[in-house]
Amino acid sequence: MTPQAPLIALNERIAAVNDVLNAASVLIWDSRTMMPAGGAETRGCQIATLTRVARDLLLSSETEAALDEAERGVEGLPEDSSERRIVLQTRHAIEHHRQVPAALIQARAALRTVAQAAWIEARSKSDFFIYAPHLAETVALSRDYADCIGWSEHPYDAMVSIYEPGETAASLKTLFTSLRAGLLPILGAARSQPAPRSDFLFRDYPEEGQRAFGLRLAEKLGYDLQRGRLDITVHPFEVSFTRNDVRITTRYNRNYLPASIFGTAHETGHGLYEQGVDPAYTRTTLATDLVGLYAVGGTSFGAHESQSRLWENHIVRSRTFWRLHFPDLQRHFPDQLGDVSPEEFYRAVTRVEPGFIRVEADELTYDLHIMLRVEIESALMDGSLPVADLPGAWNALIKRDLDLDVPDDARGVLQDVHWSTGYIGSFPTYTIGNVMAAQVMDTLRTQDEALDAALEEGKYAVLAEELRTRIWQHGRRFARDELLERVTGRGLDPKPYLAYLEGKYTR
Amino acid sequence: MTPQAPLIALNERIAAVNDVLNAASVLIWDSRTMMPAGGAETRGCQIATLTRVARDLLLSSETEAALDEAERGVEGLPEDSSERRIVLQTRHAIEHHRQVPAALIQARAALRTVAQAAWIEARSKSDFFIYAPHLAETVALSRDYADCIGWSEHPYDAMVSIYEPGETAASLKTLFTSLRAGLLPILGAARSQPAPRSDFLFRDYPEEGQRAFGLRLAEKLGYDLQRGRLDITVHPFEVSFTRNDVRITTRYNRNYLPASIFGTAHETGHGLYEQGVDPAYTRTTLATDLVGLYAVGGTSFGAHESQSRLWENHIVRSRTFWRLHFPDLQRHFPDQLGDVSPEEFYRAVTRVEPGFIRVEADELTYDLHIMLRVEIESALMDGSLPVADLPGAWNALIKRDLDLDVPDDARGVLQDVHWSTGYIGSFPTYTIGNVMAAQVMDTLRTQDEALDAALEEGKYAVLAEELRTRIWQHGRRFARDELLERVTGRGLDPKPYLAYLEGKYTR
Repeated sequence: MTPQAPLIALNERIAAVNDVLNAASVLIWDSRTMMPAGGAETRGCQIATLTRVARDLLLSSETEAALDEAERGVEGLPEDSSERRIVLQTRHAIEHHRQVPAALIQARAALRTVAQAAWIEARSKSDFFIYAPHLAETVALSRDYADCIGWSEHPYDAMVSIYEPGETAASLKTLFTSLRAGLLPILGAARSQPAPRSDFLFRDYPEEGQRAFGLRLAEKLGYDLQRGRLDITVHPFEVSFTRNDVRITTRYNRNYLPASIFGTAHETGHGLYEQGVDPAYTRTTLATDLVGLYAVGGTSFGAHESQSRLWENHIVRSRTFWRLHFPDLQRHFPDQLGDVSPEEFYRAVTRVEPGFIRVEADELTYDLHIMLRVEIESALMDGSLPVADLPGAWNALIKRDLDLDVPDDARGVLQDVHWSTGYIGSFPTYTIGNVMAAQVMDTLRTQDEALDAALEEGKYAVLAEELRTRIWQHGRRFARDELLERVTGRGLDPKPYLAYLEGKYTR
Repeated sequence: MTPQAPLIALNERIAAVNDVLNAASVLIWDSRTMMPAGGAETRGCQIATLTRVARDLLLSSETEAALDEAERGVEGLPEDSSERRIVLQTRHAIEHHRQVPAALIQARAALRTVAQAAWIEARSKSDFFIYAPHLAETVALSRDYADCIGWSEHPYDAMVSIYEPGETAASLKTLFTSLRAGLLPILGAARSQPAPRSDFLFRDYPEEGQRAFGLRLAEKLGYDLQRGRLDITVHPFEVSFTRNDVRITTRYNRNYLPASIFGTAHETGHGLYEQGVDPAYTRTTLATDLVGLYAVGGTSFGAHESQSRLWENHIVRSRTFWRLHFPDLQRHFPDQLGDVSPEEFYRAVTRVEPGFIRVEADELTYDLHIMLRVEIESALMDGSLPVADLPGAWNALIKRDLDLDVPDDARGVLQDVHWSTGYIGSFPTYTIGNVMAAQVMDTLRTQDEALDAALEEGKYAVLAEELRTRIWQHGRRFARDELLERVTGRGLDPKPYLAYLEGKYTR
């Protein structure tokens, strides 16, 4: 991108917004990895102030003037040029934020603090009704928010558009209906097979070995530690402070080895996306979510999740991967894995076992957990499901889909942090990520005959380079569906995902 | 402090300024302890943006309006009330920043990046003239800055006032002249004594043991790890993100044990000051350096240094301390310290040995290093010393004061980072800290007869409580000299410091 002269002033304004939002990200990373307990008291204020400052900078008359000038300046450029997209996305974000009064933003921020505390207490006591009034308030404010930014068919549309622009309650219904229809028979077939051996996964795995293997794994996949680092946290995440400082986190469960291995692979996938964004986009609109006020280089939550799922499931949770790298894992844990073969390890980490907890779910049941949440949060948004009926509705859906009886709210409706932080509408992006990952892999495998051979030899740089040129480098320049069409020739399509799952879990 | 109604709006504005400056501090801490190499590229922009945003918030019409209202509201309150001081200090800071054009701030910030890179290269090649043009520019911009904020007798006055309000070139000359006259005979007497045994300080001390002892030491002195943490860095520092998140750093020299012990004690002293600020001052003007645009609870650089020096030198570098705690150190390093007595250890860590490097200097030569720098930077400011003559002038002063021949610029004029970061005028605060530490300790010992007995038993909480009530809790409410007068009945007085040094080093 050669910045055209008319963009200079706008880019300067947005660079400051990006700086402030990246600073907020550093404060969030620190609060989840390094901060002593005492720091929590004021950290929330600091992050809230930075977000408010970023919004004020975006909505200032100086930015408006720079944007007006830029709009005139880019008129003759191609519609999909970086310059046009910068102008378009900035205008869209400003219009978005103009529709939301500051008072509503403050009310949502204030509620978040209270709601999270209530959720933590409710979950520890497994009592939904401690949290219920705060969730009711969250739903009410989310509906206010949806009304501000506008919707035509369903209020849920407005919330989903924040995380996954282009998707609506209706589009998700279409996608999920066909996905569900394809998934259930595969799940049935997989459950009819005998359970593989998995005892060795639960042995004693000291943290140092897990960390050492995790770092090697991340580097093997192409994650650059000169531009990143791996730390410990409670709820693992990836966060970037520009493409040259992209951090991943994990947790080590001493008695369950897969958690850190696949968790690290997952966050590495997110990290690779951020590390691969075009350097020219640094500190621009194309590396900033100006609507969500979050400094991120990937183009949507779903697109981001597609990259983490791709590396976690298509690469690391594969027979090929463990045939190549199980000996290395064995070297890290000779006592614990001495009596295990690569094939046994692969079968153990791909066993299918329906359970109550989403984050522990296997590949076949994971999306059922998501669909259940989407069904519920969309019904909360349109008022057809009162908050008081939530536990009953949740438990009925788990019974319907997984034939399990939820024993308590902690393992049911209270398990996820999302709603308590004010996120309603983000759950669909997990399944969109799964679908997109398979669709992209399917295309790459079809178009590049050498790819499978490279993966068979552990040459992950071949895949990384494909993804970098086709997806990562574009940052937020293209919307998710546009990107997907450029790569695969079509919009979101669940067929390759179902084919992948069928091949992996029923043969 | 019960915030008077008229202060509410002002406090809200300043809270946001404080949040943004604390965010900048987190980014600085991260860049010096955690950040991967790649992050440096954009981190400087992020910190610069936050500082600019803080200044803009301070100079905004909303802050001005809130300040006008607050000024009217606090009129009847005592002159030294928190409320009056908040208003006064905020007004002073706004007037300060109004005098400095944004272009000059940007020029200084831009120069800093280039000058630091040049200084690093110059030092590694030990060639002053690589850095000289940038220093000349730094001096020129500092003089512009001094002219903006105004001075009457000497341009250096303006620079010193940023770090140590109340001090001037003239007041420093008076202080340093009597200090120097007292110091030289003590140094002469100390140097005439036989050197103690110190071989054991240079043995092999693995990092884990140093870290474990350092953490115990910090906690022993009263540092609260629930509101802090200890990390590794190249140039140790302390930084706070409000009183409940105060972080210290150190470095471990495997072949020189005292570096981390006394370094950790020093930063702990800074940390105790910040952890001890009145909670009511959190996010207010009284915990923010609105002139320096730095979120800090201590009242001046010198006052801050007095607390670090007090704990480092008066407490930890004392015979009593090692009589009590040397056995614990021995337990951490049984092989390395098995043949050493507490008295031998004490004598080794108080040996006097003039050298080229300020940060390695003993208590008797340290202030000579400072006076030399103050002489030079004040002559740079008034133009009587051209930058090109600097190495010659430096080496001549080292010869005069320490009778040493500087072998190269790296061990001479290029050893300190300060000037390359744009800091001219901060050096005097180190010696002010030494003087103030001794003056405070002398008063406390005189007024509180139980103090010495408590220290003899290692009950450091008694001293910490005295310092907390007399100094720390007041944050930035009182200026340094005002604080000193409240505690000791008079302004800065070098006599207790000279008496302390004489007692420690010549008997």
